[in-house]
Amino acid sequence: MIRPSLPVLSPLLVERHVREALEEDLGRAGDITSQATIAPHRRATATLSSRQSGIIAGLPLAHQAFRMMDPGVEITPERDDADPVDADQVIARIAGNAAAILSAERVALNFLMHLSGVATTTSRFVREIAGTGGAICCTRKTIPGLRALEKYAVRCGGGSNHRFGLDDAVLIKDNHIAIAGGVAEAIAAAKAFSGHLVKIEVEVDTLAQLEAALAAGPDVVLLDNMTLEDLRRAVDINGGKVKLEASGNVDLSTVAAIAGTGVDYISTSKITMAAPALDIGLDITIDGS
Amino acid sequence: MIRPSLPVLSPLLVERHVREALEEDLGRAGDITSQATIAPHRRATATLSSRQSGIIAGLPLAHQAFRMMDPGVEITPERDDADPVDADQVIARIAGNAAAILSAERVALNFLMHLSGVATTTSRFVREIAGTGGAICCTRKTIPGLRALEKYAVRCGGGSNHRFGLDDAVLIKDNHIAIAGGVAEAIAAAKAFSGHLVKIEVEVDTLAQLEAALAAGPDVVLLDNMTLEDLRRAVDINGGKVKLEASGNVDLSTVAAIAGTGVDYISTSKITMAAPALDIGLDITIDGS
Amino acid sequence: MIRPSLPVLSPLLVERHVREALEEDLGRAGDITSQATIAPHRRATATLSSRQSGIIAGLPLAHQAFRMMDPGVEITPERDDADPVDADQVIARIAGNAAAILSAERVALNFLMHLSGVATTTSRFVREIAGTGGAICCTRKTIPGLRALEKYAVRCGGGSNHRFGLDDAVLIKDNHIAIAGGVAEAIAAAKAFSGHLVKIEVEVDTLAQLEAALAAGPDVVLLDNMTLEDLRRAVDINGGKVKLEASGNVDLSTVAAIAGTGVDYISTSKITMAAPALDIGLDITIDGS
Amino acid sequence: MIRPSLPVLSPLLVERHVREALEEDLGRAGDITSQATIAPHRRATATLSSRQSGIIAGLPLAHQAFRMMDPGVEITPERDDADPVDADQVIARIAGNAAAILSAERVALNFLMHLSGVATTTSRFVREIAGTGGAICCTRKTIPGLRALEKYAVRCGGGSNHRFGLDDAVLIKDNHIAIAGGVAEAIAAAKAFSGHLVKIEVEVDTLAQLEAALAAGPDVVLLDNMTLEDLRRAVDINGGKVKLEASGNVDLSTVAAIAGTGVDYISTSKITMAAPALDIGLDITIDGS
Amino acid sequence: MIRPSLPVLSPLLVERHVREALEEDLGRAGDITSQATIAPHRRATATLSSRQSGIIAGLPLAHQAFRMMDPGVEITPERDDADPVDADQVIARIAGNAAAILSAERVALNFLMHLSGVATTTSRFVREIAGTGGAICCTRKTIPGLRALEKYAVRCGGGSNHRFGLDDAVLIKDNHIAIAGGVAEAIAAAKAFSGHLVKIEVEVDTLAQLEAALAAGPDVVLLDNMTLEDLRRAVDINGGKVKLEASGNVDLSTVAAIAGTGVDYISTSKITMAAPALDIGLDITIDGS
Amino acid sequence: MIRPSLPVLSPLLVERHVREALEEDLGRAGDITSQATIAPHRRATATLSSRQSGIIAGLPLAHQAFRMMDPGVEITPERDDADPVDADQVIARIAGNAAAILSAERVALNFLMHLSGVATTTSRFVREIAGTGGAICCTRKTIPGLRALEKYAVRCGGGSNHRFGLDDAVLIKDNHIAIAGGVAEAIAAAKAFSGHLVKIEVEVDTLAQLEAALAAGPDVVLLDNMTLEDLRRAVDINGGKVKLEASGNVDLSTVAAIAGTGVDYISTSKITMAAPALDIGLDITIDGS
Repeated sequence: MIRPSLPVLSPLLVERHVREALEEDLGRAGDITSQATIAPHRRATATLSSRQSGIIAGLPLAHQAFRMMDPGVEITPERDDADPVDADQVIARIAGNAAAILSAERVALNFLMHLSGVATTTSRFVREIAGTGGAICCTRKTIPGLRALEKYAVRCGGGSNHRFGLDDAVLIKDNHIAIAGGVAEAIAAAKAFSGHLVKIEVEVDTLAQLEAALAAGPDVVLLDNMTLEDLRRAVDINGGKVKLEASGNVDLSTVAAIAGTGVDYISTSKITMAAPALDIGLDITIDGS
Repeated sequence: MIRPSLPVLSPLLVERHVREALEEDLGRAGDITSQATIAPHRRATATLSSRQSGIIAGLPLAHQAFRMMDPGVEITPERDDADPVDADQVIARIAGNAAAILSAERVALNFLMHLSGVATTTSRFVREIAGTGGAICCTRKTIPGLRALEKYAVRCGGGSNHRFGLDDAVLIKDNHIAIAGGVAEAIAAAKAFSGHLVKIEVEVDTLAQLEAALAAGPDVVLLDNMTLEDLRRAVDINGGKVKLEASGNVDLSTVAAIAGTGVDYISTSKITMAAPALDIGLDITIDGS
Repeated sequence: MIRPSLPVLSPLLVERHVREALEEDLGRAGDITSQATIAPHRRATATLSSRQSGIIAGLPLAHQAFRMMDPGVEITPERDDADPVDADQVIARIAGNAAAILSAERVALNFLMHLSGVATTTSRFVREIAGTGGAICCTRKTIPGLRALEKYAVRCGGGSNHRFGLDDAVLIKDNHIAIAGGVAEAIAAAKAFSGHLVKIEVEVDTLAQLEAALAAGPDVVLLDNMTLEDLRRAVDINGGKVKLEASGNVDLSTVAAIAGTGVDYISTSKITMAAPALDIGLDITIDGS
Repeated sequence: MIRPSLPVLSPLLVERHVREALEEDLGRAGDITSQATIAPHRRATATLSSRQSGIIAGLPLAHQAFRMMDPGVEITPERDDADPVDADQVIARIAGNAAAILSAERVALNFLMHLSGVATTTSRFVREIAGTGGAICCTRKTIPGLRALEKYAVRCGGGSNHRFGLDDAVLIKDNHIAIAGGVAEAIAAAKAFSGHLVKIEVEVDTLAQLEAALAAGPDVVLLDNMTLEDLRRAVDINGGKVKLEASGNVDLSTVAAIAGTGVDYISTSKITMAAPALDIGLDITIDGS
Repeated sequence: MIRPSLPVLSPLLVERHVREALEEDLGRAGDITSQATIAPHRRATATLSSRQSGIIAGLPLAHQAFRMMDPGVEITPERDDADPVDADQVIARIAGNAAAILSAERVALNFLMHLSGVATTTSRFVREIAGTGGAICCTRKTIPGLRALEKYAVRCGGGSNHRFGLDDAVLIKDNHIAIAGGVAEAIAAAKAFSGHLVKIEVEVDTLAQLEAALAAGPDVVLLDNMTLEDLRRAVDINGGKVKLEASGNVDLSTVAAIAGTGVDYISTSKITMAAPALDIGLDITIDGS
Repeated sequence: MIRPSLPVLSPLLVERHVREALEEDLGRAGDITSQATIAPHRRATATLSSRQSGIIAGLPLAHQAFRMMDPGVEITPERDDADPVDADQVIARIAGNAAAILSAERVALNFLMHLSGVATTTSRFVREIAGTGGAICCTRKTIPGLRALEKYAVRCGGGSNHRFGLDDAVLIKDNHIAIAGGVAEAIAAAKAFSGHLVKIEVEVDTLAQLEAALAAGPDVVLLDNMTLEDLRRAVDINGGKVKLEASGNVDLSTVAAIAGTGVDYISTSKITMAAPALDIGLDITIDGS
């Protein structure tokens, strides 16, 4: 089996996100507590450590936060994105200007805790379906502004990515079908409209709709809110013709059974927007103190 | 008792956030599914409805999303931010261009679901401590880029706001104290540094530190990770002199007991970054279909 | 046959592009010639007219330029994007503030002339291959910053769109193949990496590579710089299994023959970046003069 | 004769343009093909080479694209902007991270091909009029957003620059004259309005208008769409008093004759917006493959 | 004599400046005082009034501030930019949302007070030299970010504008002369480099340099720090050939004498960056209170 | 006595301000005078020197301007921000690319002259009240866009900072009091609305209002436009309960007497927006000339 390579965040994306987050936290006057209490040239070392077990995601953003406040900071990573950590494991060691490290701390941790939370939650769903041929994938229910980052974290957790926006794939839902005059008509319209590098997915609620959809030749069919029995029958009807994605009522207690029906993908919003943060902390030692 | 007025999001803040979120979702090619299947002048009506009970927050952002895609859209609100909703209650009615409503749907819902999740979670903590004199407040553990919105949602849920960034109040923590040479020295440095419209809070771990802190005259003391017994003694020692804030091990099962010790504020990150989203949906009817 | 609907430029995209273009042209001091010679409340009417025959593209941008300089301007369109025009045909009538119309003129025309040039050039290639089953499509050789607009104009001219960026489809080229260790290995790596809504195209130079590629199951194969004879054999070998795209040595004199081989798509950079502008002018009448 | 020095693009301008172009191409997910097929630390060397003869322009932008994706990239230039190249000549050698080079390739080439196309086309017009005292200059018919770059490329090709926007010089056209009440009145208004570091040009269609204009003392007169005979007479009438610029019906077959009339500048939009791109390619060798 | 028309600020420039200023003042949480004390639908009327006599500049910015906080605000101007006001004269009447008016107040006044200060100071210099043929002009010593606005205000005060940046005119100073190898060489280099719509000014310190400069044919000569006697001789030497600008030791007590020497322009930084603000206030009446 | 540490400008703030100022000055074509007269690799040394005595502020911005135009520039500071200088004292020595230093000169000096003017003016007020317990503080009357920088400069001059915006502290003025129904009601509303890290100040005009205010427990009272006698009585009435700030009619001749009344803070807009610039110059020596 080929193990997929991990996605890579572009340096431009990392810089833009961290700059905006630091500007949000520093406001107009900057870190006034550190300015009041720390001499400008004081140095410190720090360790970034997990407080819970989970999967790490977001290290390039955390590191960038420290580098933007102190271009000379030295960072020694002990773990990479997508690595599992136990509680109280060192993720990275940081040495640099004391005030800079303290000023960047919250932004670094906020990215890391949220994205590691996404990766960790994803990995729990992935573990539940191990051994089935299915994969866990995300949706467009993401925090506004953070979609690319959350989708990256889903991959760190072993999940797969659904489309990144309204523009990179067609997803025909009930309203589009209603306006187009039927499943076949909607798929035909999408094929006529789309370039040859755009995939077309159609959402169906019933097996009858599935059969109509398959006749029209989409790339993927989304089976929404079907019973396990209907999912199984859908897999049979499809006979491997197109990829099948299941959604609806997906949680850690149901996902294995859904995957067991033989669908290719199970999509859920539980792994993105509102995944619980992974607890990660920064322990700082001021040099000479 | 004076009931506090609700905060108001500035129109510039709303516009900036929604523009960025729509641009993220529309990408380069826009909503290709709607372009493929919906004639440009087709109209629709829609209802924004809760699928769960909770507290609504983020309506100005949701409305702005529809208005930016169709400046002529008509929105009839049935609920306001900070209002409670039951499951399946109509929040707003929307009438306008069909493709525009579908293109704005996800962005509108992503803001509304996340911020209503923050408000709802906050309200649960607030309800737990009803009758004590305490208040629930947020921290700086927020989604990067969304701090002002999440803090607004905390207020919609009945919570109170901690500082918005590193620059609008001083919060002296262990590292600052270590560098400054002690609690008293750190507070003195902060007082010498700060303007007269800046409050100074100091974090202490022990009652001994609390006494040292009180002697130096901060505005607020943060009691971190203390036992209920120590919190009670801290309240006694303080004798109403400064505001006391408790943090650490705060959850729905512990918050009432913590509030019962007599502290003024209980701060928790559980109500912001990773609050579970409130399920809200959009039901669309295409005119003439 | 289903006639594909036209793409729609989002209002946010139009506003951002026109704002930047106006700011570029107005510089720091604005339109000093009009300020010097035209009283602020003078009004004018104008007609936007073709000076050559061709296909129009870019009207939403042209109209936005006038509206941004005079929010009260009245625009009466006589032609829409994708419409053919003869020489000296009225495209739109404009009535509003005289100085505003003159200040917006160049920006409006620059968008319209360049994008109509792209649409017109595309339509010439499309006309050449009428009756074959092939389609003309664009590449990523576009003017930096204008990709979404140029790809929209290609559609107005009857062409089809290739991917919009590096992120919305996989296109495996010779270097990727070399690193991956072969065509099959590269396609396998891409399949393992990609989500189920991402298409995978592979570029091949020889029929042997084509056979290796087909065995690995991509969505599209790009036949680069092949002879007509080899293209024909490629079509035979493929037997309708995947979409075939031909590139290399495509111009108005060769495109019909290439399409005649039975490939599905012929891609060319000649229709974007350096398409000759369509000559379009603005004739202005100052009211009362 | 003094050979004019070449203009220099400011580092801020280069950075801003390249950042926007890379963000456009990378989209949300980045270069997914390279992520799928190339190990993150793989290195490569590449040569940037001309495929046609022409004049190079845009190297600082091309180099910046590689540097932004790999800050440690090593670039060895073999040619500078404004240098002539033959077909298949090496322009620069690049060594660095393999995925970064592939991800930056298209943006680097798009800038270089378009701007070298502008420089090359300009140089062809310049060569046609060698030996006359005239100069070729550009207009404001430029690609929206790229004006400063296209005007720089015109200079690389040996051309001269007209104004950069509406704000850095006055150019009085027919509508301004009509509103002002005549050529003399328009020039007087412009003189009264303008600071002493602003030049004033007036466009005339007839020799009678030229005489009226000269009486009012502009800095430059633009002779629009005049016959060669009228251009010659205009040069006589002017007698070296002001600079004369000719426009209209300028192409490679007519420009020498126009320059032969003795005008100082011949302006044409053919050298900017729609100049055909110069074919330039990147040949990559992956280290160890 | 032709009275020059006033410059006009473009709506894009006004919007951008006011948006940034409002965002700076509103910060993350907005106007918390008004949120705390004013019900959202409360209305108010207000008058913008001068507290000192002077010249008004900046009204489009002030009005935009109110409009951005309340799109429905009604503004009735009583004075226009460039109008003189006495102390306690009404400049505009404003009616709209009470909280919005209070939130916009400071930004509106900050623009208006600073720019009216620039206009008023300029007008004092202009008045001093009335009757001479000279004009007062500004420099590039302006507040970073506000150059176009300050130069507009100089015009409102009756002054003239020097170049707006490093790019719209050549100004050769001592260092350029030293590097070029002399005044004549520097001017020749500038002429060879510059397009025909760019003026060339050269700064000289001595009459000998002036003669060298005049021989090389610049458009303007800047006479820096010369005695009145030398200025007079410079005017004689020039004999009306080029425009002469004097700078150095310009203040309200010296400017008339400098103008009396016959120079065309007297430039001074005293009228921009650090012009004392004009005192302007906003008197607000809350409806129904 | 503890000497307060100086504030520190964040590197992100410095970079953003300097980038915008350089882009404003360079415009589209850049520094055309240096491009015309200086060979690209020519080097220079320069000294930044005071021409007047005063207090320096803004060096990080000045240095950044040189670094952005020449990343390899070497800067040797001789003075730091907040240091006093005499006339003709060297502030810093700069060595680097000649054209880059000349292109950055004006932006560097504009920041430095304006901010040093703010610091110097502040220090004059501070010196006047030496020996009283009072402090000088700024207001929100600042140049739009430059508030954080001007407030930093006030600190360099020995002054104290008032709130940075509408959002970081409550300041209840007459209109808020009128709407709320009285001083006590307004303060109660502000307390109910505000988080525990927000200070509340109320402005009063009379001693009666002061007494009402004190009864309601604000953090600070602003005594607006009171006589010295009333200020003294206000200090008595307050008895050290809250901080007292005086405003109105504050200038160098009155400030000592106001401070002598015993108020804690005297606020004035004279030290920010319109502080006269400190004269600072750059003396450049071109290497090898």
